[in-house]
Formats: sequence, C-alpha cells, structure tokens
Amino acid sequence: MADQQLFSLVERMTLEEKIAQLMQLAVPFFEGAEESGQITGPMESLGITDEVVRNSGSVLGLAGAKKVIAVQEAHLRNNRLGIPLLIMADIVHGFKTIFPVPLAMGCSWDPGLAERSAEIAALEASVSGLHVTFAPMVDLVRDPRWGRVMESTGEDPYLNSEFARAFVRGFQGNDLSGDVHRLAACVKHFAAYGAGEGGRDYNTVDMSERQLREYYLPAYKAALDEGCEMVMTAFNTVHGVPATGNKRLMRDLLRSEWGFDGVLISDWGAVKELIPHGVAEDEAEAALKAIQAGVDIEMMTSCYIHHLPELVSEGRVDESLIDEAVLRILSLKKRLGLFERPMRGADPEAERELVFCDEHRHAAREAAAKSCVLLKNNSVLPLQPEQRVALIGPFAASGDILGPWSWTGSKEDAVTVEQGLRSKLSSGRLITAEGCGVSSMTEQQLEEALKAAKEADVIVLALGEDSEMSGEAGSRAFITLPEPQLELIKRLKPLQKPMVVVLFNGRPLDLHGVLDKADAVLEAWYPGSEGGAAVAELLTGEVNPSGRLSMSFPYSVGQVPVYYNHFNTGRPKDAPDAQERYVSQYLDIPNEPLLPFGFGLSYTDFSYGKMKLSAEEMSPDQPLEITVSVTNAGDMAGEEVVQLYIRDMSGEVVRPLKELKAFRKLLLQPGEQQDVTFTLTEEQLRYHHSDLSFESDAGQFCIMVGRNSEDTETRQFKLRK
Amino acid sequence: MADQQLFSLVERMTLEEKIAQLMQLAVPFFEGAEESGQITGPMESLGITDEVVRNSGSVLGLAGAKKVIAVQEAHLRNNRLGIPLLIMADIVHGFKTIFPVPLAMGCSWDPGLAERSAEIAALEASVSGLHVTFAPMVDLVRDPRWGRVMESTGEDPYLNSEFARAFVRGFQGNDLSGDVHRLAACVKHFAAYGAGEGGRDYNTVDMSERQLREYYLPAYKAALDEGCEMVMTAFNTVHGVPATGNKRLMRDLLRSEWGFDGVLISDWGAVKELIPHGVAEDEAEAALKAIQAGVDIEMMTSCYIHHLPELVSEGRVDESLIDEAVLRILSLKKRLGLFERPMRGADPEAERELVFCDEHRHAAREAAAKSCVLLKNNSVLPLQPEQRVALIGPFAASGDILGPWSWTGSKEDAVTVEQGLRSKLSSGRLITAEGCGVSSMTEQQLEEALKAAKEADVIVLALGEDSEMSGEAGSRAFITLPEPQLELIKRLKPLQKPMVVVLFNGRPLDLHGVLDKADAVLEAWYPGSEGGAAVAELLTGEVNPSGRLSMSFPYSVGQVPVYYNHFNTGRPKDAPDAQERYVSQYLDIPNEPLLPFGFGLSYTDFSYGKMKLSAEEMSPDQPLEITVSVTNAGDMAGEEVVQLYIRDMSGEVVRPLKELKAFRKLLLQPGEQQDVTFTLTEEQLRYHHSDLSFESDAGQFCIMVGRNSEDTETRQFKLRK
Repeated sequence: MADQQLFSLVERMTLEEKIAQLMQLAVPFFEGAEESGQITGPMESLGITDEVVRNSGSVLGLAGAKKVIAVQEAHLRNNRLGIPLLIMADIVHGFKTIFPVPLAMGCSWDPGLAERSAEIAALEASVSGLHVTFAPMVDLVRDPRWGRVMESTGEDPYLNSEFARAFVRGFQGNDLSGDVHRLAACVKHFAAYGAGEGGRDYNTVDMSERQLREYYLPAYKAALDEGCEMVMTAFNTVHGVPATGNKRLMRDLLRSEWGFDGVLISDWGAVKELIPHGVAEDEAEAALKAIQAGVDIEMMTSCYIHHLPELVSEGRVDESLIDEAVLRILSLKKRLGLFERPMRGADPEAERELVFCDEHRHAAREAAAKSCVLLKNNSVLPLQPEQRVALIGPFAASGDILGPWSWTGSKEDAVTVEQGLRSKLSSGRLITAEGCGVSSMTEQQLEEALKAAKEADVIVLALGEDSEMSGEAGSRAFITLPEPQLELIKRLKPLQKPMVVVLFNGRPLDLHGVLDKADAVLEAWYPGSEGGAAVAELLTGEVNPSGRLSMSFPYSVGQVPVYYNHFNTGRPKDAPDAQERYVSQYLDIPNEPLLPFGFGLSYTDFSYGKMKLSAEEMSPDQPLEITVSVTNAGDMAGEEVVQLYIRDMSGEVVRPLKELKAFRKLLLQPGEQQDVTFTLTEEQLRYHHSDLSFESDAGQFCIMVGRNSEDTETRQFKLRK
Repeated sequence: MADQQLFSLVERMTLEEKIAQLMQLAVPFFEGAEESGQITGPMESLGITDEVVRNSGSVLGLAGAKKVIAVQEAHLRNNRLGIPLLIMADIVHGFKTIFPVPLAMGCSWDPGLAERSAEIAALEASVSGLHVTFAPMVDLVRDPRWGRVMESTGEDPYLNSEFARAFVRGFQGNDLSGDVHRLAACVKHFAAYGAGEGGRDYNTVDMSERQLREYYLPAYKAALDEGCEMVMTAFNTVHGVPATGNKRLMRDLLRSEWGFDGVLISDWGAVKELIPHGVAEDEAEAALKAIQAGVDIEMMTSCYIHHLPELVSEGRVDESLIDEAVLRILSLKKRLGLFERPMRGADPEAERELVFCDEHRHAAREAAAKSCVLLKNNSVLPLQPEQRVALIGPFAASGDILGPWSWTGSKEDAVTVEQGLRSKLSSGRLITAEGCGVSSMTEQQLEEALKAAKEADVIVLALGEDSEMSGEAGSRAFITLPEPQLELIKRLKPLQKPMVVVLFNGRPLDLHGVLDKADAVLEAWYPGSEGGAAVAELLTGEVNPSGRLSMSFPYSVGQVPVYYNHFNTGRPKDAPDAQERYVSQYLDIPNEPLLPFGFGLSYTDFSYGKMKLSAEEMSPDQPLEITVSVTNAGDMAGEEVVQLYIRDMSGEVVRPLKELKAFRKLLLQPGEQQDVTFTLTEEQLRYHHSDLSFESDAGQFCIMVGRNSEDTETRQFKLRK
C-alpha cells in the first residue's frame, strides 16, 4: 500500500470512523468473537456503542492465534472500510517463555542477550497473534521504594540506552513489514515516570529541564533512534502538567524537536486521569488536552469517543489534528503489513510448536544465569558434589519467580529452585523445608527448617518478595526482606552451618540481616520460567556468575535516593581537607550504598593491569584510546565486565563524580589474559549546559576503569578544542 | 552622610582597598585588639596580610561590647579612609536569652511572638556590639532527615513568609539608622537549601523553575518585601549551578527581577566551594563566577582578595562590578549609621543590664510555652497537684535544650525540666532518675528508673535528640529516637503507670514506639533558655498548650518527603471509584503522615460552627468573606489556631489538594464563642503557570476551614473573572 492510498483512505473516513481509530478497546468488547464470529458486548460503563467497536482501531491484551484470527476476521467483516485492528499487549520480558525481569537483564550487562530475549518474545507473541508490545520500559530509576524498578534496566542513562536499543532491535528486527515474527515496540513511559516522589507509584515528578534532558530522556531517545515505532505516555506530571496532556513535552519536544512521527498512546486510563490530576474539569477538556498534546490512541477510557466529535464541531479541535493521529495509526498498520496480511504472524500451528519450546526455554535459562549477581561469597559457593544441601525458604519450591508483567506466562511451568537443584545433586543429597512463608512463620515451619538444616552440610535459603510486592502499584516504604524471613536467618545462624541466601525480588533491598549473616548471597531477581534451573547451575558452579548490579543497593531506606553518578557537592566527605562535621554526610550511616552500581562477584578472580592511554590529550578529531589488560587469575572460566567511567573536573554546571561511558563483557579461560581497548570520543564528553546546549568543554577529565563503580584505577587527560 | 559622599568615598579607594571591603574575616584576625588596641594575627593559611586586615570590610562572629569597641577603634585608627567595620554573626533564635528554635516558633503560629523574640535578640546583640545577624533562615523544608529543619519555620510557603516578615521586623525595626538596638537582617539561604537530595546537608538540589518559584522562593521574597537588608547564598546547586556562582539566580532573578540592591554575602566558604562543586577550576575562576553572580562579601575564604586584582587587571572583571559591590556594603554601613556612630549600640553597661535580663527570660518562657505542641493526651495531663511525679530520661536535668545555633547562649543557665517542675510541685513530690543517656543505657540507670517510677503516680519521660544530632551537618538517615530511649519506654510500660513523654528534638521524628505507648506526648523541640520552666507550666496546666505542627511528622522515613500541600495524582487512593491496587499508595504504610501539618491538642475542647460564605462566587473586585464560629467547649481557657485552606479544582498545572491561605490564633475563655472572619481575595488564588506567569484562573475552588490540615469543613465557591 502506498502512502497516497493511506491519505485517500483517511479522506473516505467519516469523523466518527476516524475518532474510533483513536480508541483502544480491551478484550471484553470482543468476547465471543471466536465462537460466534461476532464482535459483541459493549461495556455499559464506558458507553461504547457497537458502531464504535466496529470502527475501533486497536485491541488491548488479546492473545492466542485462534482467538485473534476470529476477532480480526469478524472485524474486517464489520468494518466499512476494511481497516484491520492492531492487536497490542504488554509483552515485557517474554510471552510464555518468561525471561528475567528487565532489572535483572540490566544486570547482565549484555545487550545482545536482551535483544535475543526480545526476539524470542516477539516470535512467541506474533505467532499468537500480537502486533505491538508495550515495551521496552526504559525509565531511569533511583528509588528502590518504587515497585516498577524491576521493569527498568537501572539507574544509568548510558546502560539503559544500550538496553533500550537492544530491546527495540529484538522486538522489531530490521524488517517489520516483511518479518511477521516481529512486533512493533512501544517505548515507555514518556517521560520520567521513574522519578515519582517518595518512590510512590503515580506520584508527582518534578525536576529541572536540564536534569530531565541529561539523565532521564536519553534512553527514550535511544529507543527512537533505533526505530521504535511507538511511545507511551507516563502517568506522572512533568513540569506540573501530566504527561498525557503535556503539549510542551509531547508536541514540542517529542514530535517537533525529536521528529517522532509514530503513534503516541496514553497509558491505561491516563487521558481521563487528567481530571483527578486537576488539569481538566471534565472528559471533554481531558480529550482536548490529550489530542492537543499529540496523543493518538486513548487507552481504556472514552474521552475521545465521546467528546472529540463535539470539540471538532465547536471548532475547539481542528479536524486536521484528528486526521494526523489517524494517519499515524494507519501508517503503523501499513508498516506492519496489516492491510495485506491482517492476520500477520497469527498461526495456531506455529503457536503450538514454538511457544515455550525447548530452544526458547534454553535461552531463558542462559539469560537468567547471566542476570544473577553474586553479592557475597566466603568460599561457600559453588556447592561441592558430596555436600548435603538443606534448601529452605518460601521460594524453595515456588513458581512465583516470573515476576510482575508475566500475565502470559505460567507459574506452574516455572522451574523452581528445588527442581533445579534436584536435577544437579546426587540422589538423597537435597533436603527441603519451607521454613516460613513470604510474610509469615509458624513454629512448625521453623522446627522443620532447623531439622533439615541440622542434617545438612550447607543451608541454601531461597528468600525474597512475592511478585505482588513489586511491579506496578507495588511501592514499599520498608525495603528489607519481610520480618519472618529475617527471623529465619537469625534462627538458623546459631547452627553454624555454611549459609547461602538466594534472593528473589524486584528491587534493591536493604540487606542488613542478610549480607552480614550469610556466607554467600546470590541475587536472582525474578529470573523467569527457567529461574530455578539457572540458579542451580550457578550454585553448583556449572555456570560462573557474571551479573553486575545496574542499580545501587542502599544502605537503608533513609539513604534513598542513592546512585553512583551523583555530584561532589561543595563539601565532599572524603576531601583531604574535609572537616569532621561540616561535610555532606549522614551522622548515622555512610554516604555510600551498601553495594555499588556495577558490583558483582565471580567464582574466579580477575586481575587488572595498569591502564594505558594513547595520549594525554584528546580533541574532536583525535579520540583517546584506553587499553587495560585483564587476566583470569583463578582456575575457572568466567566473565568479567570491564567498566569505563569519566569525570569532567570542571563544567559550566556540576558534573557527576563518575559517568559510565563504555563497558565490555569478556569471557576468559583460567590464566587467559586479554587487552580491552576502548575508544573515547569528544562526543561522549558532551553534556547539557545551563542553556540546554549539548556540548563538551575543553579541560581536565578523569578516566576510571575497573570492575565496578567504586573499584577503579584513575588517570587524567585533557580535552583540547 | 549623603549618597554622594559614598560615591566619592568609593572613588578615593584604591582597588586593593575596595576588594578588602568584600572580605569578611573571622575573629582570630582581630584577637588581641581588646588588650593591645592592635589588630593582629593574620592567619597563615589564608595568606591574609596586615594590609588586608586593616582594610577589610566586616568581621564574623565577634561579640561583646568591650571587645567590639576595641576592635572598631583599632580599625578606625588603622584604616586609611576611616571606614568602620561591619560586625556580623549568627543570632538565630536569641543572643544570650535563647528562644525556641525557629521550627518551634513556627509551631506557635504566632508571628507576633517571633517578632518580639527577634527584637529581644537584636537588643541583646546590638548592645554587645553586633550590627548584622545571619537570620532569618526561611528555607522551605520537607525532609526531616535534614538537620537544619530546626532552623526553618516549616513546610508551608505562606506560614514561612509570615514568619520571615515577622523576624525581619523584629530584627530591624522600622528605623535601622536611628534605633541602635536593632540589627540588619540577612535572609538565608538563597535559594532552596532545604531541598537537598536524600535530606543530606549540602547535597544537590534539583527542581523545576516553576516549583522553585511557587513553593521555595516566596518566603525569601517576603523577607525582602519587609525590607530585609541582606541575603546569604545557599551551599547547594540551583539548576546545576551552585547558588554562590549562579548568575541566573542571583543577578538575573534576585537583583534584576526582584530589584534587590542590598548586600549579598556568601555562606561560610561557599565561594571557594565552587571548586569542589566542579564549576570552577581554581580560586580565580571561583572569584570570577561569584562576583559575576553578584556576591558582594566573601565569607571565610580569600578568593576575592587574592584573585580579583588580577582579574581586573586582565580585564576579565570590570572594576565597576567591584565598585557596585563596595557601594552596597558602604550603603549598608551608612544605613546602620556606622559612619556617624561606628560603635553603634555597643555599650558594656547596657550589656550587663539587658543581656539575659528577667524581662527577656520571661519572654523566652512565653515563647517556649506557645511553641510546644501537645501530640497526644489520654486525660493524663495536666498533672494534678497531689500526684507524685517520676521525672526520668536524658533530658530531665539537661541544659542541652537550647538547640543548635545558640553559641552565645549558655546551657548552664538554661532552666531544666527538673528545675521547672521542682518549682511547681509540692516538696517531695518529684522523684528523678536518668534512666538512660541519649544513646546509651546501663543496667543501673534502668534500675534506678524502674525504682523511681514505682514510687510515683505518673511517669514523665524527658527524651530526645542531643543538639549535635540536628542542626547544620546533622542529617540522620534514621529518624526515630535513639534505641536506648525507646527501650526505656518499653521497660517502664509494664508498670502500667500513666506515662507522659516530653520530647526535645530538632526534627519531626518517626514516633512509633512513643506515640503508641505513652499516654501523653508533648513536643517541646529545643525550647531555649527557659525551656524547663515552660514545660513545667504546660505539664501542670498553668499554661494551656497551643502549638500546632508546622511540619508533618512522617509515618516512617520511607515515606519522606511527606507534606500536606501535595498533589492529587491521576490515581488518588481515596477516590470513590479507586481500585484496590492501582492507586498511588505504599503497600505497607498509609499515604498520610503520622501527624499532619497544623495538628496540635489543647487541654480544652474547641467546637466549630458551620462555615458561612458571603457569596457563592468571588471576583477580583469582590473578595469572599468566610466566617466560622469557634467555641471553647471545655473548662479551661485556651488558644485555638483556626486554619483556612483552599484548593483550586482545575488549573493549568496541577494544584495542591490544600494550601494554607490564612489563619487566626484565638484565646477563648471557657464557654466563650467567637466569630472568625477571613477575607479571601483573588490575589490569594494566583499561582505560577507553565509559562511562569503568576495569575489566577476562573473556575471552581474548595475552601476548607478547621483545626488542622486534615480536620476541616469544606465548601465550594467559584472565581469569576
């Protein structure tokens, strides 16, 4: 279909038909389509007529090839102009084969892995009939109270950008029209949804324009640069105006400045939420503000359907605004090839064959193993083959390790830690006990745990947060493990058995009572369908842990927000001439997080040689080469993440003490040495100045290379311009 | 002296003499002046020459009439042009007679009281030789982790503005030249020092320009509107640039937009701190940025002295910038009458007579009594004359109740709670025990406490934070009482005696373990020199508590920041159609603070009649009158603070759920009824729009009147324009 055909299609549409394209309806409107071939069931509460359903542009949350085909066929029969539906859903970290949550994927420091996970998710979802996924979520996160940090790849704008690009490549491939096994991606939540005050979901966001551009926007931009088809609005305010009605953010910045011409969709109900936000008096004003801002699709509320007709007839909305929104939606349908192939990848046979297939599960296991982070190890891990292992805790035999946003996955099909370990250990070597629930403990549970532990050589505790404790609307003011689980550790400690804790959770936790008491701690996050298998591979040493934290673990919730790329302040605590009291510090805790960004252990040791610079100076024409030699000094093959940070010593505005600019994940055999060379260009030294210009300043810089954000070697260089 | 004379004085000054006027030196440079009549002792580390000392413009932290006179006399002998020194110091909440800390004064909701306290402080300080005080501090505060919340009057822009004006009036009077018993005031810290990230002192501040103007700037502006002579820069960044080198903030906003032409002084060392902040490479650049921003006086570092000469000779700084700074300093000296009366109020005899005199101490006692807030009372208070009282706790006999910023006060002269109670109770009715230290407890202390408690009818626990635990650089990540004090409560609880807790502290605390266990809780803050006497008056019912919180008490530190004038969000928890999960909330704690803004109990009961509005609509020409009838329904005279809040139901940007717009503190005799009438004007409905314009919007508003920010009656009205 040529562009001209799209224009003439729009011309042939009535105003009502156009507005219906902007409406996204949920599955209940289409219930029965599969059986009767009819679209039925307008939901009274939204006041949606059959006519709107017939003309609507997209469906939310529908999946299953047979059902999708039935709905699409019925729709094409009923739709006057034969415009196919867009089938959309949240496929965030896997379809049926659930991969680790994005925060865990971030900890892999392996965008290739993320790309592959998205490719598999797209394949499974597309044969099941989907066209669009509401992913990747690339919100920068600094507050572990927020439940949705699990859905982000972490606290760093550069690392997040790399993952944003990888997810988009994985979902979309490079030929969205031709390759029916890909999905259109929708980057979210534009913008700065991760910065909600107090870590409370949906709460107010306020920051300077410069902060927004320098730290929060880059990952969205990276996704769009990679060709991401869609953008979703955030629930929060930006500069006092909810994103969904924010003309300055959407029309001025996203559309005009960045040139984004794809489909902008509201988050669930966000158009109507302009009313409780207090920037719209009623649904009509909400519709007005959203369409003016450039929101093309209204998700789950009906302000557009009910009020755009009158707004157009009253002359308050120019019909061209609606035409342009419709055109963007139709263009996306065209790019997805839906006019030619309205069923696209939907294929019941391929669905049976591919969804949750062995190959996909294997990939999920690999991703999980590479996403876990070894936080502590006093030579207890890996487990030895002859050891008797007591596996205790609420996550020992639990399938609740998929994490939030895995509605298409199945907890029953998840490999539990117990299943994973049982397949690795000799018969009779694994003793299990619940020990406690996630938030409860009985005397009997405790006694069983003590008994199991006494019989074993080593205790493995599988602890964490259930999946309802994080995710959307899953904010917590206390970020420790629930008390009964801490109590379990305390009660087992006196047995003086080696104790390994495996953590399943969706946020950086305050690990006091865990990290200090356990001999080894493995952060497994929500590792997905193959989580237990991956954890078993890591515990037994079949796979060497290689994850590195992509979000700092705070010392306590009173330290939040704590993140590595902070500023020095005028009174840094560690300055040589610092006073004892009058420095920027807490009286009762350190300034540093309990575990820093980039941190993670391995079963082998990596040693770093002295950093070599190609020159003492660089210029826009002459990049700097930084070489460091890394050796696997232990006796097990393993992966190291070599991290490169810079510091601009003096800027026009304050500059972070460290900024990640490059990294490399290396596999080294025992004794193997490799030189890692990074090329740093002037472009990477640019930042947003007071006037929002994005440029570098000549002058002194530090370059830091090392194994995490706190353990680095530092050298200086000068930028000449 | 006429203005023309000032101009010609500047003309006669050498560049070095001018620059020395911009230098503020600390007392050590002038040590010995009193004895030898000589200014001596340049401090090696700063590289200050005798010449600079002879020409310097001001002194920091000098006090005592005799000493000041000696220094000033010596200075005038040595200074070529006979320009007197400005004598400056931090007189924040009293000179020798220490008043409650400003946060406590804020809780009085009585600006007249604040004015009187500042007047007395000014009188004592001026007879002791001072000319300028670095007060009031009017930083808006929302984070109780920050130690300096004790120095602010609280979280509300309007209440803070009223207190800012009152303090300025009290310090300066209305004839600064003629009345030598007043001080020039210096409002601080410009700007937004209260918003340091993570509540860590000196830490990064970032917020939108609109947030800055709407909430953080009004109190500074109010102080300047009241004629405040000076402004002090903040330590923090504003829009990425440290305030002290922030041209946009200082020269563009403060000087040009607001027209402030008084003296701008850096905070302690803040000019040189532009280097660690990372916006100046060296002292020369620090000097350059500060003078360009419009900072007139450099406090405690010597970037100006050492680098302005070369910056002028290199043409990087126009000498007119220096002339203008010198002129502002000389103008202040002129307005203080120092050219005619260089000793101003310094008077050893008046000093002996007035400083810490009975009248002042009486005023301090009254201020303390009106600043304490009764947080809970299960009919235990007031104490009955016949009761035997066990007074226990680290603050029972402690003079450490003056609070930070009371360097001129004396803990030894402070009236302790024990002294206060002893003077009120019949002989033999008071038993005392330490119980524990602030952060420690011995078995013996505990046993003594238990013994004392057993002998008594009622336990009064005097608990809190020592003064080092708050104030500057006194940030805490945990905001509970120290563990031993909570333990003391726990151990005394089983005795089942009525238990009263009196709190001495500098911040809103997490009161779990206190509020739930005690029968009555009195928040005394740091009440100052007469604190123990005031507390005794309140405990015995001689005075009826009338304080109301001016800062919310959080449920826990994981809820921070929590403040009453927040926004609704798009998914408010309490909406009629709210879902159970997908609302803005924490899973584990309420959204509401433990104790709300405006809260405080009395020994009597006040009942409110129905609110009456003069009309259903208002307009710019037709203000609205709101009348409510308040009755003292109890049997003790008492003061009630009637509070009026508004809500703009729909704005161009999101608007707070409540905003304080007026209040009235009333004294009512038992049974007495009074009508309180507030006049609300269109001007009070204005706010900063997206484009920073400050105006009101026609439309629907709510008006709420009541006893605190959560307990109000609501009515609606419309603004017509």
